[in-house]
Amino acid sequence: MLVDDLVRNPGSWLSHGRDTGVVVSSRARLARNIRDVAFPDWAGEEERLRVWSEMRGVLAGMPGLADALILDMGELAPVDRAVLRERHLASLDLTEKGAGSGLVVSQSERIAVMVNEEDHLRLQAITPGMELLEMWRELDALDTALEERVEYAYHPELGYLTACPTNVGTGLRGSVMLHLAGLALMNEVEAVIKGLNRMGYEVRGLLGEGSEASGNMYQISNRVTLGQNEEDTVRGIIAMAEEVVRHETNARLRLMEGRRVNVLDHVGRAYGILSHARVLSSGEAVHLLSALRLGVDFGLVENLTPASINDAMLLTQPGHLQKTSKRNLSPGERDELRAGMIKKHLKGVCIAR
Amino acid sequence: MLVDDLVRNPGSWLSHGRDTGVVVSSRARLARNIRDVAFPDWAGEEERLRVWSEMRGVLAGMPGLADALILDMGELAPVDRAVLRERHLASLDLTEKGAGSGLVVSQSERIAVMVNEEDHLRLQAITPGMELLEMWRELDALDTALEERVEYAYHPELGYLTACPTNVGTGLRGSVMLHLAGLALMNEVEAVIKGLNRMGYEVRGLLGEGSEASGNMYQISNRVTLGQNEEDTVRGIIAMAEEVVRHETNARLRLMEGRRVNVLDHVGRAYGILSHARVLSSGEAVHLLSALRLGVDFGLVENLTPASINDAMLLTQPGHLQKTSKRNLSPGERDELRAGMIKKHLKGVCIAR
Repeated sequence: MLVDDLVRNPGSWLSHGRDTGVVVSSRARLARNIRDVAFPDWAGEEERLRVWSEMRGVLAGMPGLADALILDMGELAPVDRAVLRERHLASLDLTEKGAGSGLVVSQSERIAVMVNEEDHLRLQAITPGMELLEMWRELDALDTALEERVEYAYHPELGYLTACPTNVGTGLRGSVMLHLAGLALMNEVEAVIKGLNRMGYEVRGLLGEGSEASGNMYQISNRVTLGQNEEDTVRGIIAMAEEVVRHETNARLRLMEGRRVNVLDHVGRAYGILSHARVLSSGEAVHLLSALRLGVDFGLVENLTPASINDAMLLTQPGHLQKTSKRNLSPGERDELRAGMIKKHLKGVCIAR
Repeated sequence: MLVDDLVRNPGSWLSHGRDTGVVVSSRARLARNIRDVAFPDWAGEEERLRVWSEMRGVLAGMPGLADALILDMGELAPVDRAVLRERHLASLDLTEKGAGSGLVVSQSERIAVMVNEEDHLRLQAITPGMELLEMWRELDALDTALEERVEYAYHPELGYLTACPTNVGTGLRGSVMLHLAGLALMNEVEAVIKGLNRMGYEVRGLLGEGSEASGNMYQISNRVTLGQNEEDTVRGIIAMAEEVVRHETNARLRLMEGRRVNVLDHVGRAYGILSHARVLSSGEAVHLLSALRLGVDFGLVENLTPASINDAMLLTQPGHLQKTSKRNLSPGERDELRAGMIKKHLKGVCIAR
């Protein structure tokens, strides 16, 4: 299995046809390191190569990873790295590394393990909808199985040791991705983010790097990894995410009661531009698709599902565009191709008049 | 005949179904004053009332003005004043006056005479297309007929005397309105305007007041009224306008050769927004209709004529909207009504895919 195969399917964090409404996806991640081996950024090349070589073998022996995709960062083309980032399978950090780092991805893309990113192991489980507890439990099982083969760096008082002190303890980062288009239209996102920050939660944009929230997609994650057990951490994130969903739902109700015509205008314009533009930047496309997704949630758009919008968002990212067109594209060519793909994607879609 | 009747028809300066391409309309205007009577801004109310009373009688006796619309600024509702401005029949200046000023408009709206605006008489002839010489000749005939009934303020060396020194001499202002959407897309309008200014010509936006060029509509007019005979003035404006049309045509050729996809994008987006927005400000509507007009000129839009776009531009102006809806509208209500009217206007219109 190659990266080429990935782009034929929607990403694992996409809804796969399930209408998840405001909640887009849930993701859990565990940071783990091997005892008495230097963290990747301090290790020599030889040591990193040895860790990658050993870990790819160990991981391939884990339940569910027997036919996993194994990707060596020493061999990957730039476009493949972009595809992995866009599918939320690898971080920017990992895809900037070379030989000695790698990625192991299950067939379903639900489980992904980065080797020699910032830590020796970064285990990830991701799926559509509000399934954070299930994702944590899957990771926990994988982690337990791994612990029989790998001796982790563990401190009896601190817990799991990690390269960055912000991960020490559980090494667990849970996140829920929400589509906050209603709060955005009401200009209330900032207030919600401030509240979450005060409660000890982090809010980030779509790609999990930087704070830019393309397409009004926001990831809520825990900041604390120390002095709290994993299940409490996960339940805390879920409670927070559910609270934000209530805010979003309330904002949408207020929009439809007090500003219905503005919602119709917002959704209508997005549809009008997406179905008639000949040039679309990635940023504009995601922004307009977000408005259309809100319209779908409101029942204003016919013959279109949130899952199909997620597909369009993913497939029109620069890496996916280059990969599917099988050639290098200039930014201008990408913008044309993107507009053409989205126009085709929206064929047969109708909007409330 | 009342102002109510006007709004049922397109304005006289609109193309009436004729495809005029880049040239929208031609307008000639003569400033005249009555000998030994103070200019309107210096005259007392009684004197102004007398001039208006006399002149409305004299004008009604002129050829072509027998069944003219006679409008007294002392009696006109604000919405009617807005309609007259939007139809290019009266200036902002005139419509801000009260009793003692007025307007005489021929049935076809081709001839309009403002009484006691800045000057005692402002004669105007306006029609679609490049017809400035014809418009001047019509005005000249009216002026000659009027001169048999009215003794004009005339100085043997200076020529016709006017309230503002910039009109002294011929009192003639000719203008041609051009749709410069191609030059605008190429960012070359400023250079053309600078060139025209250096040659002694004035360039103004759609409404002839201020320099804002809504919808890429530009009026080119003469600055000089002294020391040049009328026909030379008119021929000079026509030559300049034709030169600008050549520039515009050249810009359009370059656009279609080098930036075809951007033109398709520009026109497609305008169509997409106009046919799906629920809220449209007057400024945005005119801007997008200009893009659509360019698309029509390029043959990219089916079932739509420039004349029909002109209609939409005029009928969705604030005054016309209020007049046709027969009630006072808040700006928000106007924006909704405008969007609805334009959507209806574009029914059956198709765009090149």
